[in-house]
Amino acid sequence: MSKVAIIGYGNLGRGVEQALKQNTDLELVGVFSRRDPKTVHTDGAPVYALDKLEEQKGNIDVCILCGGSATDLPVQTPAITKNFNTVDSFDTHARIPEHFAAVDQAAKENQTVSIISTGWDPGLFSLNRLYAQSILPVGETYTFWGKGVSQGHSDALRRIKGVADAIQYTIPKNEVIERLKAGEKMNLTTRDKHFRECFVVLEENADAKAVKQEIVTMPNYFDEYDTEVHFISAEELKRDHQAMPHGGTVLRTGTTHENTKQVIEYNLQLESNPEFTGSVLVAYARACARLAKEKQFGAFTVLDIAPKYLSSADDATLRKELL
Amino acid sequence: MSKVAIIGYGNLGRGVEQALKQNTDLELVGVFSRRDPKTVHTDGAPVYALDKLEEQKGNIDVCILCGGSATDLPVQTPAITKNFNTVDSFDTHARIPEHFAAVDQAAKENQTVSIISTGWDPGLFSLNRLYAQSILPVGETYTFWGKGVSQGHSDALRRIKGVADAIQYTIPKNEVIERLKAGEKMNLTTRDKHFRECFVVLEENADAKAVKQEIVTMPNYFDEYDTEVHFISAEELKRDHQAMPHGGTVLRTGTTHENTKQVIEYNLQLESNPEFTGSVLVAYARACARLAKEKQFGAFTVLDIAPKYLSSADDATLRKELL
Repeated sequence: MSKVAIIGYGNLGRGVEQALKQNTDLELVGVFSRRDPKTVHTDGAPVYALDKLEEQKGNIDVCILCGGSATDLPVQTPAITKNFNTVDSFDTHARIPEHFAAVDQAAKENQTVSIISTGWDPGLFSLNRLYAQSILPVGETYTFWGKGVSQGHSDALRRIKGVADAIQYTIPKNEVIERLKAGEKMNLTTRDKHFRECFVVLEENADAKAVKQEIVTMPNYFDEYDTEVHFISAEELKRDHQAMPHGGTVLRTGTTHENTKQVIEYNLQLESNPEFTGSVLVAYARACARLAKEKQFGAFTVLDIAPKYLSSADDATLRKELL
Repeated sequence: MSKVAIIGYGNLGRGVEQALKQNTDLELVGVFSRRDPKTVHTDGAPVYALDKLEEQKGNIDVCILCGGSATDLPVQTPAITKNFNTVDSFDTHARIPEHFAAVDQAAKENQTVSIISTGWDPGLFSLNRLYAQSILPVGETYTFWGKGVSQGHSDALRRIKGVADAIQYTIPKNEVIERLKAGEKMNLTTRDKHFRECFVVLEENADAKAVKQEIVTMPNYFDEYDTEVHFISAEELKRDHQAMPHGGTVLRTGTTHENTKQVIEYNLQLESNPEFTGSVLVAYARACARLAKEKQFGAFTVLDIAPKYLSSADDATLRKELL
C-alpha cells in the first residue's frame, strides 16, 4: 500500500480523487490546496493547507501534482520534488526539456523520483508515437485531437466584445483519418485535419453577424480552420455543454518491404478528460512509488517506464494473464 | 551499430530480412538455416548452416529466432541463449510461463539477454492490455483478431476429404466493436465476436454440399462460429489469396467516477503479418542489444521493456520530439 497526496484541487484534482477510489493499493492521505481548506469541498478526502505539506514528509509516498502547466508546475514540481516523490502532467510540449532538467536536478540532489508529463498528450499518445515509429521506421505519424473542448479557444471566444459566454470544440475530420488508414498519401494542412465548432451566448444587443465575422477571421485561433458558430442561450450552454469530453487518435501509416501497407492506430474516446487524465496520473503514481523503492532516483517520462510498473499485479501474473 | 543474425528462414525470417533494411543502426550478419545453405534463397543476406552458428560467437550481438512456436522455439531459444542474446516471437500463450523460466535460466547462467514473445499477440496487444487495464481498472478488455488468415483453420479445411486446397479468414464483427465503443454492455459468445470465411478448392467429383456440411459442423474449429464457404478454382486461390494480411483490435471500455465512459482502442491493419511481426522483432532486437550492453542479464517480455529502448534515438531527442 502506497500513500499519495493530491496537490491542487481543480478539475484534475477531482479526477485523481475519483481514480484513487478505483485503486485499492493506493491510499489517499489528503488534498493540499493554496485555498483556505474550509472552502475546499472534496468527495471525502481531508483537506490541508499547501504550506503544511512538508509537515507530512514521511507520511506520503507520492505527491500527484494537479496544477496548471502555465505557471504552477514549472515552480511546484521542482520545489516539491525536493521533499517528495512526484508525478505531474506538465503539457507545454515545447518546454518539456527544460522542465525535465529542473526536476531531474531536484530529484537527483534529494534522492527522490519524479515522473513528468504523464496524461495522454503528452503521455499515452507520446508512447504510441514512439512504439509505432520504432516498429515502422518508414512511414508517417499523424495526431488528431477531439472531439473535445479546447480551453484556450473557449477563452479566446469569451474575450470578444458582445460575447457573454462560449465553448469551443475541436473536431477531427474522420473522413481524412479513414483515407489515411486506407493508404492514401496526403499533404495535410491545418484546415484538412480538424474543424472547430463554437457555441456562443451573446450579450444583450450584441451584433451576431459582427461577432461571427470576428470569430472566423481570428488569427492563430480560427482563421486557418473551417469554423462553425452556433448562437445559443445561457440556459442551453449550461444544460448541454458542461461535460468535458475529449480524445483523439495517433495514426502511423508505414510500409515494409516495397509497398506493403501497415497501419497502427491508437484511439481515445473520453467522456471526461480530467477523470481520464487523473487515472493516468494515478497509474504513474504507482510506478513512481515502485521506482522510489528501487532507489532509481531522478526524473522520468512515460518513455522511460517499463509498462509493468503501472500494474498492481506481479510480473509472473502479468506474463500468465496478459501476455 | 549492432550485428544481428536471422535463425530460420521461412515467412517470418523473410519479414525480418526486409525490416532490417529499414533500420540502418542494425547490420545483418546472415541467415542461419537447418536446410542446405545452397537451397536457401534470401534477398541478399549470406546464408550459413545453423550448426555453424557457434563459430560466429563474438561476431553477433543478437540472434532473431524465426522458428515456429510448436516445436522449434521451446528448444531453440533456451539453447541459443546459452551463447547469444536472443529475441523470439513465441506465441503459445498458455506455455509462456514455462518458456520464460527455461530461457531466463539459460540467460542468467550465461550472462545473456533474451526478449521472448515479441510480435503483436503476444506482444503489442499484451502491452496495450496492460496499459489500458492499469489506467482503467474498472472495465472490460476485448481482443478481436482479423481480418486475417488462420493457418490452423486453413490446415483443418485441407484435411477434409474432397478438398484439394483451402484458406480461411478470421473476420471480426465490426458492428459489435462499434456497439462496445458506444458503451453497450454485452455478454459476448464466441459467435458474436468473429465469423469465419473459407475459400475452398474441391477435388474433381467431390460433393460440395457434403464438404460444406462437414466444415460448418467441425467441432472446435467452426461449429461455434458463423461460417461462410466459397468454392473457387485453384487459379482463383492462387491469384487472390496469396497475401498474408492480418490485424485486430484491443478494446478497453471502462468507467471512471460513477458512470463516465472512457474507451481506449488499439488497432492494427496489416497487409503482411510476417513483415509486421518481423518489424516488431527487429525493434526488440535493438532493445536486446542495449540491455546486454547494460549487463541486464536474464529473460524479458515486452511488459518489462521501457519504450525508449525500442528507438535508435537518444533520450533527449525522444523527449523533445515525441513527448
